[in-house]
Amino acid sequence: MIIVMSRDVTEEQIGVVVKKLQDAGLDANISRGVERTVIGAIGDERKLTEEMFTPLPGVESAMHIVKQYKIVSRESHPQNTVIDISGIPLGGNQIQIIAGPCSVETQQQMDLSAQYVSEAGCRLMRGGAFKPRTSPYTFQGKGVEGLDMFRQAAKKFKLPIVTELMDVRMLDTFLENDVDVIQIGTRNMQNFDLLKEVGRINKPVILKRGMSATISEWLMAAEYIAAGGNHNIIFCERGIRTFETYYRNVLDVTAIPVMKKETHLPVIVDPSHAGGKAWMVAALSQAAIAAGADGLLVEMHPNPSEAWCDADQALTPQELKKLMGVLTGIAAAIGRTL
Amino acid sequence: MIIVMSRDVTEEQIGVVVKKLQDAGLDANISRGVERTVIGAIGDERKLTEEMFTPLPGVESAMHIVKQYKIVSRESHPQNTVIDISGIPLGGNQIQIIAGPCSVETQQQMDLSAQYVSEAGCRLMRGGAFKPRTSPYTFQGKGVEGLDMFRQAAKKFKLPIVTELMDVRMLDTFLENDVDVIQIGTRNMQNFDLLKEVGRINKPVILKRGMSATISEWLMAAEYIAAGGNHNIIFCERGIRTFETYYRNVLDVTAIPVMKKETHLPVIVDPSHAGGKAWMVAALSQAAIAAGADGLLVEMHPNPSEAWCDADQALTPQELKKLMGVLTGIAAAIGRTL
Amino acid sequence: MIIVMSRDVTEEQIGVVVKKLQDAGLDANISRGVERTVIGAIGDERKLTEEMFTPLPGVESAMHIVKQYKIVSRESHPQNTVIDISGIPLGGNQIQIIAGPCSVETQQQMDLSAQYVSEAGCRLMRGGAFKPRTSPYTFQGKGVEGLDMFRQAAKKFKLPIVTELMDVRMLDTFLENDVDVIQIGTRNMQNFDLLKEVGRINKPVILKRGMSATISEWLMAAEYIAAGGNHNIIFCERGIRTFETYYRNVLDVTAIPVMKKETHLPVIVDPSHAGGKAWMVAALSQAAIAAGADGLLVEMHPNPSEAWCDADQALTPQELKKLMGVLTGIAAAIGRTL
Amino acid sequence: MIIVMSRDVTEEQIGVVVKKLQDAGLDANISRGVERTVIGAIGDERKLTEEMFTPLPGVESAMHIVKQYKIVSRESHPQNTVIDISGIPLGGNQIQIIAGPCSVETQQQMDLSAQYVSEAGCRLMRGGAFKPRTSPYTFQGKGVEGLDMFRQAAKKFKLPIVTELMDVRMLDTFLENDVDVIQIGTRNMQNFDLLKEVGRINKPVILKRGMSATISEWLMAAEYIAAGGNHNIIFCERGIRTFETYYRNVLDVTAIPVMKKETHLPVIVDPSHAGGKAWMVAALSQAAIAAGADGLLVEMHPNPSEAWCDADQALTPQELKKLMGVLTGIAAAIGRTL
Repeated sequence: MIIVMSRDVTEEQIGVVVKKLQDAGLDANISRGVERTVIGAIGDERKLTEEMFTPLPGVESAMHIVKQYKIVSRESHPQNTVIDISGIPLGGNQIQIIAGPCSVETQQQMDLSAQYVSEAGCRLMRGGAFKPRTSPYTFQGKGVEGLDMFRQAAKKFKLPIVTELMDVRMLDTFLENDVDVIQIGTRNMQNFDLLKEVGRINKPVILKRGMSATISEWLMAAEYIAAGGNHNIIFCERGIRTFETYYRNVLDVTAIPVMKKETHLPVIVDPSHAGGKAWMVAALSQAAIAAGADGLLVEMHPNPSEAWCDADQALTPQELKKLMGVLTGIAAAIGRTL
Repeated sequence: MIIVMSRDVTEEQIGVVVKKLQDAGLDANISRGVERTVIGAIGDERKLTEEMFTPLPGVESAMHIVKQYKIVSRESHPQNTVIDISGIPLGGNQIQIIAGPCSVETQQQMDLSAQYVSEAGCRLMRGGAFKPRTSPYTFQGKGVEGLDMFRQAAKKFKLPIVTELMDVRMLDTFLENDVDVIQIGTRNMQNFDLLKEVGRINKPVILKRGMSATISEWLMAAEYIAAGGNHNIIFCERGIRTFETYYRNVLDVTAIPVMKKETHLPVIVDPSHAGGKAWMVAALSQAAIAAGADGLLVEMHPNPSEAWCDADQALTPQELKKLMGVLTGIAAAIGRTL
Repeated sequence: MIIVMSRDVTEEQIGVVVKKLQDAGLDANISRGVERTVIGAIGDERKLTEEMFTPLPGVESAMHIVKQYKIVSRESHPQNTVIDISGIPLGGNQIQIIAGPCSVETQQQMDLSAQYVSEAGCRLMRGGAFKPRTSPYTFQGKGVEGLDMFRQAAKKFKLPIVTELMDVRMLDTFLENDVDVIQIGTRNMQNFDLLKEVGRINKPVILKRGMSATISEWLMAAEYIAAGGNHNIIFCERGIRTFETYYRNVLDVTAIPVMKKETHLPVIVDPSHAGGKAWMVAALSQAAIAAGADGLLVEMHPNPSEAWCDADQALTPQELKKLMGVLTGIAAAIGRTL
Repeated sequence: MIIVMSRDVTEEQIGVVVKKLQDAGLDANISRGVERTVIGAIGDERKLTEEMFTPLPGVESAMHIVKQYKIVSRESHPQNTVIDISGIPLGGNQIQIIAGPCSVETQQQMDLSAQYVSEAGCRLMRGGAFKPRTSPYTFQGKGVEGLDMFRQAAKKFKLPIVTELMDVRMLDTFLENDVDVIQIGTRNMQNFDLLKEVGRINKPVILKRGMSATISEWLMAAEYIAAGGNHNIIFCERGIRTFETYYRNVLDVTAIPVMKKETHLPVIVDPSHAGGKAWMVAALSQAAIAAGADGLLVEMHPNPSEAWCDADQALTPQELKKLMGVLTGIAAAIGRTL
């Protein structure tokens, strides 16, 4: 940690800072510049918080120089982590496209969806049984019954399933229903009690980025899960909130190379929620894979205009199939496989 | 709802939209303009979602013209609602300043805090027993033990208490500990299961604005609570996330008159989290009251530089007292009392 | 235009709106719904502004339903426009990579740069003679002398040149120096006098997106140029400003399919300014091309660590060459050529 | 400047950084921590840019510790600067409300406006002769003729005038027309050639904050003016761009205490453009004054619903008068006068 002292700092004020560092078990390096004196902490700065120093007299600012995340950082684990999802590898050279409808509606819809997902060449399936909806007056998901329909449909095609957990009290139900991957949604990225609970189990977790979460906050949220013992974490970029109103979110494609640099864990992208319109999904999917994403979480519905939620953004089965073809070419261009 | 058809729309496509409106129990008004045909829904448009229409062929866009929130809207309840917090009115002509430390630390710290809060003329007290922290490695709050310390301290000065609930599983504990006001934090504004639970009880709830929540999303989150039967909702603006890095958040002072226009419920402001620095708090508090806020949620600590969390932003007891004096003058200037 | 009347509107207030529409030469369609009355304007709504109606008693809101841009819109010109840049086509099936240093430094640096650009297979060259710098105390560009160096270097390799114009008073000098493409920078996207001036000439113009400009504002800025008679406009996405601080800007890859839908004009991307770090450029370039961009504006310097400005973001000649290879593969995967 | 070296840095890499510092005339302090080595620059770090070091091998990051602005900083000039505007002081204890219409329309409208402005107790008048409009197809201002109308009207009531300059080529015309204060609009905050030109004259300049400019960029833009010799700079906060769509901009009230801390120059607020609606103006004005602004730039029109531009946001003469009364009370509460 670097502590910048203000212009008119006194020796006594410097002494107080040095004392506080020593009390925490660190040493101090004092650098007296022309306009500012800077105190550097020598030792494990993760024990310190900036606010231990900023309220002290004579302190102008304090800043960490070491990242606050540990287990999830690439510094602690230089090699890519490949996560095994019921036999399907995620995070290796092979890219995984996880497709399926926004929400579970009926057994028939799920059966058809699973068939199309499989036929398109995808090896994992997504679908929501519990839906976080902005309005309390709209469809909130089929709940536990939906989990069962999803499981039934996916089993026929041997597709591991990904579905969202919103409430800590439902975790046991998810485990009993053999959910293969638990998704933490964008609104719950900093629901710390939920993160702690999924940190205690041994299932892969997809952690979506909060809609206005910084890279650092996202990594720290994952650190909550990892600190509990569960290191099977998959990051999912799904678009961030900006001033632009033409589209729902801005897919932050820059986050892909940045996350791949900062963490050893896989990074996937949800192009469907990012844009919010089906006609944008192909372009965004292509961009994500070209930028180095390890996979996609993409919405497909057997009949999009009849979907019970987010009808606007689902691909048709035909569109998904076509997209898989283009993505295969892009994967090859960057030395990967689909 | 207004449905704008694309330039080359056919009569058949118009027919499909009209049919869908009629199936939902509404009528259609068709306006054929020079460049666009527009279909207006006649009936209760809250039954409709935009995505029921936008995926249909020939539809360019669809937009609600009536707000989606009902119970919390001023349209449904033109008079201001005054909430009774264990005898203290919030939302009327009298402004309430809720003060106290960021987190509960020790019984002594809480006793001192309660005394200073009371001496400054505040009638309600705040304090956190469960703390949402970005890092899993930092102090997470004193928990249930902290609730008890808080209650003990506040009781001596007859101060109703405000504290944050993060986990649905702790709700009963909060009720058993006679928490007077339950605070839902910024990270949980769209934790819908938590909202539903506090909607089932009969306690005042402070709903903080999500750090990048729109006015509309904030009102819809409150609607989740209200739809459960609990109408004792207090909105709290606490700064929004923007591109600016000099300060933690941007206090959205415009939200105050806007919320007062849209809802009959009280609107308060948290100037401490908004700025993140104690030296900004007086200016932000003054601005909030001058703009029409019904109260403040402000951090004060007996000894800020020793605070266990957010040491940077707590006022000293003396600063709080001085601020109360200035706010009294501003309240008078706008025809209110403190 | 749609004018939504407030709940308690009177017939007289409706009459005033209808009269104002008629005075402007349009007709009105009145749709009386259950909760709101909506008035639709029949005629050329571009004559109207929303603020003609919103201050009137009984009006709740007014919104355009037709886009305000005309000449640049795809609606007015469905086919892609291919712009001829001194013999090089931009906007067709062939993708153009425009490379070169951030700023012109010396004749030798420019000669070397031109050689590397050409050797990498690029057909156009970029370089800044006038630099918009945040601080008045940093290098402001070589000015007119720089233009001459640039021209000399590019001529040897028959590379048309792209350079930024900041000041209307320099336009004649740019024309005298045979600048092939005039670039309008992000800070000048709404410098309307500058836009009007480049609208009067017959040179291709690259219009960078303002760092927080909406899609609509960007298109309207181009409309300023187009309205003057110059339709040779190339849009350049260069990253937008958000809350994220890890990288300088967020490359808005969603803008690519959206702009291709809204306008017939070419859309290129500047991956160098978007990320601000050389190690991000390959991933962002690949994403941009995969998403459908017609070209790139990318920084390369013979010796990045010695560059006089933006040293952080320039590729080496070797990195540019390697990138061109990967982009060739991606272009093929989406049916285009490089 | 602090240069943080990466974990596996070599002695040779440290040597290269030290050499580069020495070449620039500074010394180095090397602090070898447990996880990172940090090099501090001893000397005038304003000679350095971060990008001089970040591309070097072994460098993780570099950051300035001294602010880059000098003349405008409070560090260089601790006392408040009071600017004399043709006899009216701005920046002292007395708050100045600058009122008038958005745009100059007719002589009669300006005569009436000047009368109302004067009658309300304001001592300065605003009005736009050149208007920056998003669309090329809307009213662009009355131009030079408008300047003359404005001058005529204001003279009768001895009101110094404030008006916006968009084009460097019009500066002489502004001087010939005795404009008292030149306003630089939000879109031109980083039009560096325009800033340099107004830096060469001796007139007060109002520098509006760019709609997504950081505090630091804003101060640096002012430094461009100051570096030219003109220190008569007034900062004007006018709302920033965020994700919120209910209102046009978010008035950044936090910027007021922050700017007062960072600079000795006056800071005023434009509540009209911030909110975009007349009904928000009183609340925002009150907030701005309560937070410590030295003045306001507020729109008033004799007949708002007939205004040629921004009709939505102008106060009526009666509303302005009433607002002045409330502001007088708030000013008193914070120890100032109106």
